[in-house]
Amino acid sequence: TGSTSEKRTYSLAVVPGDGIGPEVTGCALAVLDRAQELFGFATEREHIDAGANHYLATGELFAGPIEGRLRGKDAILFGSMGDPSVAPGILERGFILAMRQTFAQAVNLRPVRLYPGVKTPIADLTPERCDMVIVRENTEGAYVGRGSTVHAGTRNAVAIQESINTRAGVERVIEYSFRLAASRRKKLTLCHKTNILVEAGKLWTETMADVAKRYPEVETDYVHVDAMCFHLPISPERFDVVVTDNLFGDIITDLGAVIQGGLGVAASANLNLDGSAPSMFEAIHGSAPDIAGKGFANPAGAVLSLAMCLAHLGEVDAAHAVETAVVSVLGTMEGLSGPAMGGSTDEVGARIVETLEAVVA
Amino acid sequence: TGSTSEKRTYSLAVVPGDGIGPEVTGCALAVLDRAQELFGFATEREHIDAGANHYLATGELFAGPIEGRLRGKDAILFGSMGDPSVAPGILERGFILAMRQTFAQAVNLRPVRLYPGVKTPIADLTPERCDMVIVRENTEGAYVGRGSTVHAGTRNAVAIQESINTRAGVERVIEYSFRLAASRRKKLTLCHKTNILVEAGKLWTETMADVAKRYPEVETDYVHVDAMCFHLPISPERFDVVVTDNLFGDIITDLGAVIQGGLGVAASANLNLDGSAPSMFEAIHGSAPDIAGKGFANPAGAVLSLAMCLAHLGEVDAAHAVETAVVSVLGTMEGLSGPAMGGSTDEVGARIVETLEAVVA
Ligand SMILES: CC(C)[C@H](C(=O)O)[C@@H](O)C(=O)O
Ligand SMILES: CC(C)[C@H](C(=O)O)[C@@H](O)C(=O)O
Repeated sequence: TGSTSEKRTYSLAVVPGDGIGPEVTGCALAVLDRAQELFGFATEREHIDAGANHYLATGELFAGPIEGRLRGKDAILFGSMGDPSVAPGILERGFILAMRQTFAQAVNLRPVRLYPGVKTPIADLTPERCDMVIVRENTEGAYVGRGSTVHAGTRNAVAIQESINTRAGVERVIEYSFRLAASRRKKLTLCHKTNILVEAGKLWTETMADVAKRYPEVETDYVHVDAMCFHLPISPERFDVVVTDNLFGDIITDLGAVIQGGLGVAASANLNLDGSAPSMFEAIHGSAPDIAGKGFANPAGAVLSLAMCLAHLGEVDAAHAVETAVVSVLGTMEGLSGPAMGGSTDEVGARIVETLEAVVA
Repeated sequence: TGSTSEKRTYSLAVVPGDGIGPEVTGCALAVLDRAQELFGFATEREHIDAGANHYLATGELFAGPIEGRLRGKDAILFGSMGDPSVAPGILERGFILAMRQTFAQAVNLRPVRLYPGVKTPIADLTPERCDMVIVRENTEGAYVGRGSTVHAGTRNAVAIQESINTRAGVERVIEYSFRLAASRRKKLTLCHKTNILVEAGKLWTETMADVAKRYPEVETDYVHVDAMCFHLPISPERFDVVVTDNLFGDIITDLGAVIQGGLGVAASANLNLDGSAPSMFEAIHGSAPDIAGKGFANPAGAVLSLAMCLAHLGEVDAAHAVETAVVSVLGTMEGLSGPAMGGSTDEVGARIVETLEAVVA
């Protein structure tokens, strides 16, 4: 925007984070460099230090300067966060959840696709049978109820933990899910536990029914979260788009990752839907401090997240080409992480770049 | 007790319920008949009508006469409950959950074992790698919070749903789990989401640490519920006893059922630990109205639940023999339900009886 060559230009915040985050983000940026040349767009990138070391050195989490630097960007490329040196919960709540909420990243999008040639632990599963998107509500539910404890530390202790959902929050994620389903195989499944969580269940069910009126072409369905854990591994072909609440989404998306062959290949987007703040894109693996620096981390999840980012920015052809390149490389890999990967993180990244060139040529 | 032959005698309530419940319960009773002869004990059985038809005809759920008839028994053998003619939630809350709570059935016990010869959807999984017990808290948590909604039915609706846990409730299930682990491979894993459900998480974590002091021989471990969905299918050998809250237990036990080959082979116990009321034993499959009466239902889950009941009553040899018989028959079955079972429900039941005789002989 505004450059002499009138090149399409996007501002990106790059947050490599901890552990293997920087390694896989490095690969994603190398792929982005080549994609820009091939598809004629540009990015202005700001590298942002955040995560365990930064927190230990500065006390800074999301709120404050980092929030300010992220806010104006078109999108955020995120590596991963977390290290044993920081107490559990601090970075999760202080950074990841704070960002999701402050930036109104209403939707956590998790494609669950089994790519051809990728080894899944589910016997006899084929790629044709596994191509769904899980849409997780990302700003409410059990993640915002603070809870309280009475008589803490005594024999009479009682802990109460709330889950809070609003019509507005539920409606925006359901509306998004219907739109997504309408652009795919036109089936939307609500996953909840309405027979037990009666009040929340009514809100989700009623909202689903109301929004469904605007999408008569989309077939709807309902599955309890316990039954979902049963059906997801053995009959994934039942599902096209699945919409669910924050906590159930956290749970079933990990099961989705198993089915598609592991954390190494799973990508995600945290989408702001109203343009008020940037969306964020990250592989769903953690920082894996045990293998950090060894060159063993699979960059596929990070590069597939880049593809989701490109699609979100409107660079649909580039997004598609990057995804195709990753999928093609994944199909040739013996194992999906560690030495079995048949090459280091950077080597796999270089193969993705080469394949991208071949795809576009 | 008190009979001239001094035979050990137990009072059993038999609640066949709906759908395939009566069919599989019939098989379990046939096995029980033979087990009694072979092991020299007796049962006084009271058949209790309950479930969808009974509710539609009488309005009766758990509270009232049925509760009274069940209360004095040594144990309850339960088929399954539910039918499309009754609105979802009524029987679940009015009967099953009411019983769990009124009878203080503190523990929901779910062995997850892959039996030899049983087909699992998990590639390359072997029986040696899959032998755990999931202990689900069965009376508290999200199952007791009633929740509330403000501005229901409007754009401003907010639904709040609570999960309530007490030190007493958490401690009794954790104490039970340590005892169980001490009698097995001596490893107990707590499954929760302590990084998000902070107050409940603290209660579970602190109670776990306190009780652990009395069981220094048991190794303890912690896994988030989302990570559990990741590890359970691919590394079940990591787990011996897993203890978790009511809602997470509902979810991960269904995943456990997948791993062990399906709902047809999964058994459960709802244990009262203080002798104030009877414990209840049921297969974990539902009433499956679509296949009811067709003779397709696999009775293995019901007969394995009978084995758990016998163990609970102290008939440990009979329990073991019944389990061995079921496991042996399961190992010879082509499929685990439907026509692939290679015989009707009753035929499979008869094979279990024959095998039981052979096991004892
Ligand atoms: C890190 C943690 C707070 C987070 C969550 O529970 O949402 C993670 O599990 C995820 O799914 O993104
Ligand atoms: C029927 C239903 C209320 C029940 C539950 O949620 O506990 C079932 O799913 C179970 O696991 O026994």
